[in-house]
Amino acid sequence: MTFSAGPTGLGTRSTRVQTRAGEQPVRPIPGIYYHQVAEPEPALVAEVDRRVKEWAVHEVDLYPPEWEDEFDAFGTGRSVCLGYPAAAGLEHLDAAAKLLVAENAVDDCYCEDHGGSPHGLGSRLLMAHSALERPYSVAPYEQQWQDRLQSEPPCRAYQSAMEAFDRLTADQIRNREIHDLARLHLGYLAEAAWSIDGAVPTVAEYLMIRQYNSFRPCLTIVDAVGGYVLPADLHDHPQLQRVFALAALATTLVNDLYSYTKELRSPRPHVNLPVAIRHHEGLSVEAAYFKAIEIHNDVMHRFEAEAAAAAAELPGPLTARFLRDVAAWVDGNHWWHATNTKRYTLPDFLPSE
Amino acid sequence: MTFSAGPTGLGTRSTRVQTRAGEQPVRPIPGIYYHQVAEPEPALVAEVDRRVKEWAVHEVDLYPPEWEDEFDAFGTGRSVCLGYPAAAGLEHLDAAAKLLVAENAVDDCYCEDHGGSPHGLGSRLLMAHSALERPYSVAPYEQQWQDRLQSEPPCRAYQSAMEAFDRLTADQIRNREIHDLARLHLGYLAEAAWSIDGAVPTVAEYLMIRQYNSFRPCLTIVDAVGGYVLPADLHDHPQLQRVFALAALATTLVNDLYSYTKELRSPRPHVNLPVAIRHHEGLSVEAAYFKAIEIHNDVMHRFEAEAAAAAAELPGPLTARFLRDVAAWVDGNHWWHATNTKRYTLPDFLPSE
Repeated sequence: MTFSAGPTGLGTRSTRVQTRAGEQPVRPIPGIYYHQVAEPEPALVAEVDRRVKEWAVHEVDLYPPEWEDEFDAFGTGRSVCLGYPAAAGLEHLDAAAKLLVAENAVDDCYCEDHGGSPHGLGSRLLMAHSALERPYSVAPYEQQWQDRLQSEPPCRAYQSAMEAFDRLTADQIRNREIHDLARLHLGYLAEAAWSIDGAVPTVAEYLMIRQYNSFRPCLTIVDAVGGYVLPADLHDHPQLQRVFALAALATTLVNDLYSYTKELRSPRPHVNLPVAIRHHEGLSVEAAYFKAIEIHNDVMHRFEAEAAAAAAELPGPLTARFLRDVAAWVDGNHWWHATNTKRYTLPDFLPSE
Repeated sequence: MTFSAGPTGLGTRSTRVQTRAGEQPVRPIPGIYYHQVAEPEPALVAEVDRRVKEWAVHEVDLYPPEWEDEFDAFGTGRSVCLGYPAAAGLEHLDAAAKLLVAENAVDDCYCEDHGGSPHGLGSRLLMAHSALERPYSVAPYEQQWQDRLQSEPPCRAYQSAMEAFDRLTADQIRNREIHDLARLHLGYLAEAAWSIDGAVPTVAEYLMIRQYNSFRPCLTIVDAVGGYVLPADLHDHPQLQRVFALAALATTLVNDLYSYTKELRSPRPHVNLPVAIRHHEGLSVEAAYFKAIEIHNDVMHRFEAEAAAAAAELPGPLTARFLRDVAAWVDGNHWWHATNTKRYTLPDFLPSE
């Protein structure tokens, strides 16, 4: 189910796409390095949205009615269709959508705006994490714990999403995803620690943490969503691990840059790359933001170089395919941000198009 | 390098060993389910101790002179020799010893007694975790982060130990161990959250968390230490994952029971299984402790039953060998606790032998 038109393969991405940009306003950050992608089929997007909403409302009972508009506005269907243009089928997109919705729910409910807080986050997040895999013990405690999980909407979502994902893919990919979600949770907890202390991490520390609190759990499942398996001995190769870390960082910095003004409006101070740079390097707001764009671009170039090196060092159809699909996720993620003009407004000091 | 004498294979453990109990006082908790194990060769223990201390002092500069007695008293060499009786060689035992020392250092320095604290633990632990795998970014920040890690003794230890481990084993085992250490760190952070709030988790929650904050990172590397590789598609099978979770829990409950009085003397209140039971089930101190012994025994019996089921469901030499080696770690861990009569004193209310 590929939506790209034109030549394919590494290096051709920027020439490949015909956007239906007329239907979707697009405002990329001036000077930022990105690739255009094809808009997904609207009917596909709508069907993914329909299915995941039905699941969220009727199977998981994820949110109260007053959050419905927020759920709809996020645009889960478009997000996963953009991210996985080579998805094997609707069920695959649906599983990816469920994971995304569940991840957002855990973040929103436990970490952020809807009653979340950095305080006590460690026990809430481990509770959520345990819904992804099954803890065991003895009666009656094991059932008591399952009952507890079932009483928490984000935990129900995690459990159900992981079950759907597990049905589609191999055990080792399920386990890999759980590891990437553990990384995510560790990243959340590091950020919560700063937040409690009011600390602003150094730029070096920030760039490290944003490989953990990142979109890595989305981009490393491209094989599962694509209907194939990149085996562990390739996935765990240091060269590929390097690629994933850089890709994860690049995608997260995109989020930092596009959501910069949104985060300024947040009730609790948010740390992001421009903020960390400004704090530690004494730059103006604008200069810090521009430097953050440069850093993002450098990370993207490094990611692409390392991906090319990996393809050369580990030649094989699966590696090439996986790397291509990761790059597609990175590009789709950027495009989603750049076209999400309702959700994200760019800083005033940027030159207008 | 096997130290057991007599019949081998599942089910023969209790008849297999000749202890040199005369050289090592042993006081198992009355009524607790365990298996005797053979004492390791003293010369081997001494050599592992010598190597790991040389590494800690001269390569990693792990601790100041005033902690030397504490380091020696822990008995790292005996601990790993007991846990890995089928180790492939000295280098394998040495790698396991380095990991154990590094894990203890992170716990001691960041979580516990030597300046550790639950406050701000999230960022300290992610810093330590990042020493296990390499974060990437761009100059100069990537090098700045490496410099930061090099300035922290527990991080140096984690990095060096993981490098030693990595040299010995396959990429997928290195990645598996990093996942198990991520579980450990999530467990620490959950416990820290209770600690800040003064909360006592329910028994069900406690039993869940103790599969995360557990000895799992020690017991799942038995293949690496044994010089073979249990491939990911077996390791990640749900039946084996169940076995590991139960084994991890059993080993941790052993630690709870033997260190109960030690934890009573700790400056900060410790939650352990007897404490959680007492708090939530209204039992006396003694009754809670006895119930905790029963729960441990039930978990052990379940672990052994699930291991036998796994051996039947996933027949094959690697699975059988791995399960046997995990059981040996569980037994060795218990024996280490039961013979560590200097470190652990049992509660007065237990019947004397």
